[in-house]
Amino acid sequence: MTSKALIVFSGGQDSTTCLAWACHQYDEVVACTIDYGQRHRIELACAAQLAEMAGVTHHLLTIPWGITPNTLTHGGVIDASGPVPNTLVEGRNMMLLTAGAVLAKSLGITHIITGVCEADYSGYPDCRAAFIASLQTTLQLGLDYPVQLITPLMTLTKAATVELIKTLGHLEWLGYSHTCYEGHQPPCGQCPACQLREKGFREAGIQDPLLSRVWPASSMGVHP
Amino acid sequence: MTSKALIVFSGGQDSTTCLAWACHQYDEVVACTIDYGQRHRIELACAAQLAEMAGVTHHLLTIPWGITPNTLTHGGVIDASGPVPNTLVEGRNMMLLTAGAVLAKSLGITHIITGVCEADYSGYPDCRAAFIASLQTTLQLGLDYPVQLITPLMTLTKAATVELIKTLGHLEWLGYSHTCYEGHQPPCGQCPACQLREKGFREAGIQDPLLSRVWPASSMGVHP
Repeated sequence: MTSKALIVFSGGQDSTTCLAWACHQYDEVVACTIDYGQRHRIELACAAQLAEMAGVTHHLLTIPWGITPNTLTHGGVIDASGPVPNTLVEGRNMMLLTAGAVLAKSLGITHIITGVCEADYSGYPDCRAAFIASLQTTLQLGLDYPVQLITPLMTLTKAATVELIKTLGHLEWLGYSHTCYEGHQPPCGQCPACQLREKGFREAGIQDPLLSRVWPASSMGVHP
Repeated sequence: MTSKALIVFSGGQDSTTCLAWACHQYDEVVACTIDYGQRHRIELACAAQLAEMAGVTHHLLTIPWGITPNTLTHGGVIDASGPVPNTLVEGRNMMLLTAGAVLAKSLGITHIITGVCEADYSGYPDCRAAFIASLQTTLQLGLDYPVQLITPLMTLTKAATVELIKTLGHLEWLGYSHTCYEGHQPPCGQCPACQLREKGFREAGIQDPLLSRVWPASSMGVHP
């Protein structure tokens, strides 16, 4: 029997690592990207390009989720000094995984992969293992379907995720993933997301392919 | 201290009954209606009108949720002959309550009221008490906030809900609620939703104010 999985896929570093993992573990992988109103539309283009590189089917759903102010959907200056950074989009992972589970059920897929990680979770409550375990039970009840939420990166440091994708033979995919909170290409190197990424590569002793990439002139600059 | 609640409010019979209950139980009530792409736009107008009649603040969020085919967002002929009717919008209650909880948290409200009911649940898995209990735990973890999901109608028959709103002194509100799956005003009387509503009033021995209402010519017909 063909093993299948659906990956909730943002086009960022973690979900790209999960995509490599999924392609290694399953016979068939479907990627699902959700346009939730993120200001950095470049993420959506990265996701589509990476899905094509991986040779997986790609679904794009449009589900606006900027219910309360946050810098990812509303803009403004990033502030990571509080207990939770203002890049938190409240309820986002719950919505993403619910939408992914609904799509997965319609495709007869029970395994749903997400790149959430509590090791480097930045104070986001919806990246923790306890939340994911509870959400899995809730989805099983609400959809009457045996959803399994798979979190390959949950306990890994950023350095370990860099090592993982290298071991899987797809380090170059990270050259096409988007991380920068400021939407820069090449990355700004200064925002909390760029700094966390840089720290991971440094600790792993691996060169980030994003930094050695030759950019087409048309894609350089700030997006948007 | 002022007691507050947020009601996830569709403008249908059950949520209108919950609105009456909430206005009786709490000092301050906020209604939240979600445009998830329902074909019967008349529901949204009913919700706004009822919120105004009740004198509560009304929020409208737009979150398209027609991920998989169903008659409420995609149209087509209603079929209630299977184990689950094709009016089921997969994952809808999960999305509605997640969005409501995000909004509630931003307003400092912990009590969230929903009209789900397992007594007459039509086979919808996301109307059952076990699902709601699990969802409450998941929301508490995912939002890091002590959400409480309140379900005044969970174990009531439709007849008992009719008696409840009459006892609360707001039976007339039901004359402005929308139930018909076919989007008719006056109601078609034939679809599963109209028949369930009619059965409840008949068993309660109460006249449905919707049926004795004098309709403005502009609002009669099929919506859309």
